[in-house]
Amino acid sequence: MDSKVLGILGGGQLGRMLVEEANRLNIKTIILDAENSPAKQISNSTEHLTGSFKSSEDIELLASKCDVLTIEIEHVDVATLEKVSEKYPNLQIHPSPKTIGLIKDKYLQKLHLIDHGIKVADSLEVKENTNAALTTIGDQFQYPFLLKSRTEAYDGRGNFVVHDESEIDEALKFLNNRPLYAERFAPFVKELAVMIIKEQDGSVKSFPVVETIHKDNICDTCFAPARVSQRELDNSKSLALKTAATFPGCGIFGVEMFLLADGQVLVNEIAPRPHNSGHYTIDACVVSQFEAHLRAVLGLPIPELGFVTDNTAAIMLNVLGDNEVAGKELQLCERALEVEGGSVYLYGKESKPKRKLGHINIVSDSMASCENKLKYITGESDKVDEKIAKVGVIMGSDSDLPVMKAACDILTSFAVPFEVTIVSAHRTPERMFEYAKSANKRGLKTIIAGAGGAAHLPGMVAAMTVLPVIGVPVKGSVLDGVDSVHSILQMPRGVPVATVAINNSTNAGLLAVRILGGEYLGKMEKFMEQQEQEVLVKAEKLETIGYEEYLTSMKK
Amino acid sequence: MDSKVLGILGGGQLGRMLVEEANRLNIKTIILDAENSPAKQISNSTEHLTGSFKSSEDIELLASKCDVLTIEIEHVDVATLEKVSEKYPNLQIHPSPKTIGLIKDKYLQKLHLIDHGIKVADSLEVKENTNAALTTIGDQFQYPFLLKSRTEAYDGRGNFVVHDESEIDEALKFLNNRPLYAERFAPFVKELAVMIIKEQDGSVKSFPVVETIHKDNICDTCFAPARVSQRELDNSKSLALKTAATFPGCGIFGVEMFLLADGQVLVNEIAPRPHNSGHYTIDACVVSQFEAHLRAVLGLPIPELGFVTDNTAAIMLNVLGDNEVAGKELQLCERALEVEGGSVYLYGKESKPKRKLGHINIVSDSMASCENKLKYITGESDKVDEKIAKVGVIMGSDSDLPVMKAACDILTSFAVPFEVTIVSAHRTPERMFEYAKSANKRGLKTIIAGAGGAAHLPGMVAAMTVLPVIGVPVKGSVLDGVDSVHSILQMPRGVPVATVAINNSTNAGLLAVRILGGEYLGKMEKFMEQQEQEVLVKAEKLETIGYEEYLTSMKK
Repeated sequence: MDSKVLGILGGGQLGRMLVEEANRLNIKTIILDAENSPAKQISNSTEHLTGSFKSSEDIELLASKCDVLTIEIEHVDVATLEKVSEKYPNLQIHPSPKTIGLIKDKYLQKLHLIDHGIKVADSLEVKENTNAALTTIGDQFQYPFLLKSRTEAYDGRGNFVVHDESEIDEALKFLNNRPLYAERFAPFVKELAVMIIKEQDGSVKSFPVVETIHKDNICDTCFAPARVSQRELDNSKSLALKTAATFPGCGIFGVEMFLLADGQVLVNEIAPRPHNSGHYTIDACVVSQFEAHLRAVLGLPIPELGFVTDNTAAIMLNVLGDNEVAGKELQLCERALEVEGGSVYLYGKESKPKRKLGHINIVSDSMASCENKLKYITGESDKVDEKIAKVGVIMGSDSDLPVMKAACDILTSFAVPFEVTIVSAHRTPERMFEYAKSANKRGLKTIIAGAGGAAHLPGMVAAMTVLPVIGVPVKGSVLDGVDSVHSILQMPRGVPVATVAINNSTNAGLLAVRILGGEYLGKMEKFMEQQEQEVLVKAEKLETIGYEEYLTSMKK
Repeated sequence: MDSKVLGILGGGQLGRMLVEEANRLNIKTIILDAENSPAKQISNSTEHLTGSFKSSEDIELLASKCDVLTIEIEHVDVATLEKVSEKYPNLQIHPSPKTIGLIKDKYLQKLHLIDHGIKVADSLEVKENTNAALTTIGDQFQYPFLLKSRTEAYDGRGNFVVHDESEIDEALKFLNNRPLYAERFAPFVKELAVMIIKEQDGSVKSFPVVETIHKDNICDTCFAPARVSQRELDNSKSLALKTAATFPGCGIFGVEMFLLADGQVLVNEIAPRPHNSGHYTIDACVVSQFEAHLRAVLGLPIPELGFVTDNTAAIMLNVLGDNEVAGKELQLCERALEVEGGSVYLYGKESKPKRKLGHINIVSDSMASCENKLKYITGESDKVDEKIAKVGVIMGSDSDLPVMKAACDILTSFAVPFEVTIVSAHRTPERMFEYAKSANKRGLKTIIAGAGGAAHLPGMVAAMTVLPVIGVPVKGSVLDGVDSVHSILQMPRGVPVATVAINNSTNAGLLAVRILGGEYLGKMEKFMEQQEQEVLVKAEKLETIGYEEYLTSMKK
C-alpha cells in the first residue's frame, strides 16, 4: 500500500498489533527490540534489529534503514530521535520527538496540559525526595494524595497512593531515587479513555469513549462505549480531542481521564501511541487503533472512526499471567472461545504473574449482552450466551394479560427473547420509574405497554426511556377502549408512543419485530408471505366452491 | 492457545490469512510452499519448509514435524496424505484425505453429491477428448453446455462454455489433454455461496449466505448477506449445511450454489478450505472463516457464527493485478481507505495481470450503504460516504406538508439522513407499491407516513414493507382528524402501524429517532434532558414572579 519503510521502536504487543495491520497493507516494517520479541514473531524479515529502543546507537542504525519512525512505547531516547531527525532530513518521526519528550516526563506533560488550558488534577513537583518535602505537600493536598514517578511509569509501576503522613517513608522507599511529582487525589466516579488520531494536517478524529476498570493499578477491563450519560460522553470526547490537538506531530493518542461526581472531566494521562484501552477496536471497529496509527504516520487517508455498526457494544478483558500457575490464564481464553462474539489475542509472551499476555474482546449488540458474556468468561456465571431480553412486555394489570398474550405469542414465534411483567403506573409508580429508567441499560430495544381506561403506562414509560414504546389500548367494560386510545395516542409533543389498534397486541408484537430490524426483517418477510398465502388459499376455495357453500362451511 | 503444531500445505493468501489468525491464538504453524510465499511472510519461524505441497517427499517431511495437518488448497497429493496418516497414527489431517480426494476431482465430487441426494446440474463424464464424444453430449445437453477439467481447476482456469457445435474443437484445444467432464448449463439468476464449518463431532454451523459476482470466471465481488428473499437464503443455507455434512472429517467448506429463476438451488462446487467468498467474514463477523477453520481442525470451541451485529452488511471486492500497469490496482485500495467501513488486505504478492493480489472489505449498517461505498471505490461515483436516507417521510398530498414539516425538522436536528416526498395511496397507487416494496432495499430503516381523511397511506405501505411504519393522522376540514386516526390506527391483525397523535408529526420524527436506536439513543437522552430543563426554567420563573405576572408575561 505504501512503499515507505516503517521503523518501530519497541516490539512488544503494541508493536505486534501494529505489524499485524502493516502486514495486511503490505507495509514493510523494521522492528528494534530484543530477539524474538512479540512483534518480530509475526514478521518474517531479515532486517529487524536486535537491540534496545533506549540505545542511541541502535536507534541511529534503525533510522538509517527507514523512511518513517514510530514508537510503541514512549520510554525512548528523545535526544537521539532529535539527532537522527537532523541527520536524515527526509526521515519522518511520528509522534514528533518533542511530543514524546513532553509526554514521557509526566510532570512536564502535566505542565503542558495546564499551559493549554486542559483541566487536570493539581500537581506539584517534588524537589527533594524527603519526608519533609512530602509532609509539606501532604499539608497542602490533604490525604490521600498520589506520589508518582515522572518517568518510566506504566501499568501502575511508579505510582503510590499516600493515605496519611505515616506512609510517606514507605512511598519514598517504593519510588526510591526516581524523579517524583505529587498529585492531588481526584475523587473520580469512573475512569474514561479515548483514542484520538491526529493526522499530518493537524486534524483530529476520535474513536468512541470507553470506560476502564483498573485492578492493582493494571487495566482489567474496558467497556465501549463507556456506561455514562451522553453528555458525559460528549464532554470527555471534546476534552480528549482538544488535548490531543495540543501536541505537535501526528499519530494516535490515548487520553485517559477522570470523571468526577459532578460530571466534570479531568485529563489523567496521555499515551502518544496505541493503548490498552483501544484494543476493543480490533473487533468492534472496522479500522482498529493500530491501523489508524499506521495510516496517520504514513499519510494514508482516514475516514470517520467508529463502531462497525451503530448498535455495537464491546468489552475488552486483559489476560494477565496467573499469580500461581503459569498458563492457568488460558482457561479464561478457552471460555472466551465458547462465547458468540468472543475472540482471543495472545501476544506470544512467556507467562509470568500479572504480565499482560493477551486480551479478550467481546462484541455484541448491547452492553447488557456483553456484560453477560463477560460473566461467563470470568466464571461468575455458568451460562454461555444467555439470551438477553430484547423486548419488554408490560401491562397495568393482570386483567390485561389475556389481551397481551398475543404479543408474547408473536415474539415467541419470531424467536425474539423477551420478558413479561406487570407494571402499574398508578399502583406501582416507583416500579414503573425503575423499569423505564433501566430498560435501555438492561439491553431492551423496545417496550410494549398495554393499559386500559385512563391508560397512563405507555406514555409515562415513554417519558422516562429513550427506547421506542408501543402502546396497546385495552378495551374496558365501558367506552369500548376509546378512553385508552385517547390516553395513549394523544401524547404531547416531545414524547412519542407508537399506538396500535384497540386490543390488537398481535400488531404490537409485529411492530416490535419490525423495530428490531436486522435478521428479524427476513423473518417478517416470510411471515408476510405466509399471511398472503393464507388469504390466497381462502380465495381459491371461495372461487372453487362458490360463495354459498363457502358461507355454509364458515358456519360449521 | 493450543500446544499442537499445525502444518499447512500451501502458503498463498488463504494460508496467510490462516496464519494471521494462528498468530493471534499463539498457535505454531509450519508452512510448506515456495520460499517467501505470502503465508511465510507473516510468520517468523525457522521451521517453514521450502518445497511443494504436491511433492510426496515434502509432505512427509512436514507431517513428521506436526500434530495436525491442514490445507489451503485441495490440489495436494492425497495418496501421500493417506500414507503419512498411516505412518503417524497420532497425526490428525483435516479435512480428511478422503474428502480432499472426493473434492479435488470435480466429477467424483459431483457423483458424491448425487449419491447423497444433493441437487446439482446434470453432468457426464467425457470418456474421450474427441469432437465426436462432445457432439454426442451437445446433442443430449443442448447448447450452451460447460466443458470442465476434472482436476486442477480454479478461478475459471479449467472451464469452457461451449455455445454451439462449432466451438467444440476450440474447447478441446483450451482444455488440452486434461481429464474432462461436461455439465448441463444451469440457467441461474444468481450465484450464492456459504461457508460451513464442520466440527470434529460432525456438527455443522453456517456463516451467512452470500452472493458472488464473477467476471471472466474470477470472483469479482461478494455481497453479504445475498440480496435474495429470506426463503432463498434459508433454502440455500439448508442445502449448504446438508452438503457439507456428507463429507468425512472436519474443517471449513465453501459451498458454491446456483439460484435458478424458480427459486430452486443447485450445488455448483465445494471447496474443502477457506474460500474467496468468505473473506468478508474478517471484518463483518467476530470469528472469521479462517479462525473458524483453525478452531475446527484444532478441536477448539466454536459458538454460533454470524455478523458482528444483526444489522451488519458487507461487500468484498477482489483486488486483481491490473492488465496493463503493474501496481495500478492500488488506486482502488487507496479509494477504499477513504471510505468509512472500508479496509484493505494485500497478500504480499507481485502484481501480474488478473492475479488475486488482495481484497477490499466494505462494512456498513445496510447493503444500500455498502453499495454506495463500492461505487465510490470502483470510480463509478465520485462521492465518498454519501449518506443513505435512513428515514422516509411521505405524505398523501402537499397539503399535508405544513403538518409533516415538524417531523423533518426533528430528523434534521438529530442529524438523521432522510428523504421526503409525496406518495398518494389513492392517486399514485403504483408509486406507493414501488416506494413500499423498495424501501428496505434502499437502506431505509423506518417510514413516516402522514395522511388525512380516509387515510390509507400508512397502512397500505405497512402492508408492503417489512419496515416499521409510523402513521401521522392529519386533521382535515371536518371530523377533527378522527377519521384519519381510525383509518390509521385500527389496522387488522398482521399489519401494524405505529400511530401518533393527530397532526403530531414531531412525535413521529422522535419515534423514528428512537427506532433507529444505536448512537441516536444518546442524542435522544440529551433531547429529553433539554426538554426537562425547559420546563424547569419555566417552573422557576413561575415560582419567582408569581402566577399573575407570569400570565401577563404570557400574553406579550
